[in-house]
Amino acid sequence: MKAVLDHIGIAVDDLAAALAFYTDALGLEVDATEEVPSQGVRAHFVRVGSASLELLEATTEESPIRRFVSRRGAGIHHITLRVDDLAATLARLKAQGVRLVDEAPREGAEGALVAFVHPASAHGVLVELKQERSASRGHHAR
Amino acid sequence: MKAVLDHIGIAVDDLAAALAFYTDALGLEVDATEEVPSQGVRAHFVRVGSASLELLEATTEESPIRRFVSRRGAGIHHITLRVDDLAATLARLKAQGVRLVDEAPREGAEGALVAFVHPASAHGVLVELKQERSASRGHHAR
Repeated sequence: MKAVLDHIGIAVDDLAAALAFYTDALGLEVDATEEVPSQGVRAHFVRVGSASLELLEATTEESPIRRFVSRRGAGIHHITLRVDDLAATLARLKAQGVRLVDEAPREGAEGALVAFVHPASAHGVLVELKQERSASRGHHAR
Repeated sequence: MKAVLDHIGIAVDDLAAALAFYTDALGLEVDATEEVPSQGVRAHFVRVGSASLELLEATTEESPIRRFVSRRGAGIHHITLRVDDLAATLARLKAQGVRLVDEAPREGAEGALVAFVHPASAHGVLVELKQERSASRGHHAR
């Protein structure tokens, strides 16, 4: 079992400025934009090698990203590690006493399964674990 | 010109707990440990695909990592993007009015050239830019 970095989620308040920094100055490109109405966010993915930066822009007043930015300012919100078997990984974490935000896999974007580990159990880092859809068939028994 | 994610620097206060999380629970391995006495840190690199997590442990009372952890708690400290030509990238950032911590490349670990962008110009993220040694020969005119 190996975990691989999928993306770094960055909460932004001035999307145009953030995009200018990565695209004009660093020569990168936005290769996907995704609306997540349930979370009140629009995500812009900028590829940096085999991982991505996910620039997160709040689209509603109640958005968790809006709350994060109001409270702490723009900055890194989470990191996402891709694992092969999310349910098994969560079971192992739980057995070790790691505090989980999501005790079971739940549906994320593009049919992936995701679960968050609580930052209190991950040295202040909000870690999202993700299992891609292709690998999930047969494992996912909800 | 393309920037690629090299690593995510994470300030930790309880190294053993952080390592247990990544190694025992997620099945990852520490593939390098490096002392940086000038910064008062010991860095433990955990590979996550083609990027790494750099777990940063303070080794002196004056270490910037100790100050970071005292002020904000453990958490993500910086992200490092690898570029081909650091001097040219800094010149382009400067021309766009981006605030730089290091206006010129300076020597980093393993003979790489590095420079930090100020978080105020990068939506709250401390961005380190890095040019590897192999690519630096011939460019570096200090």
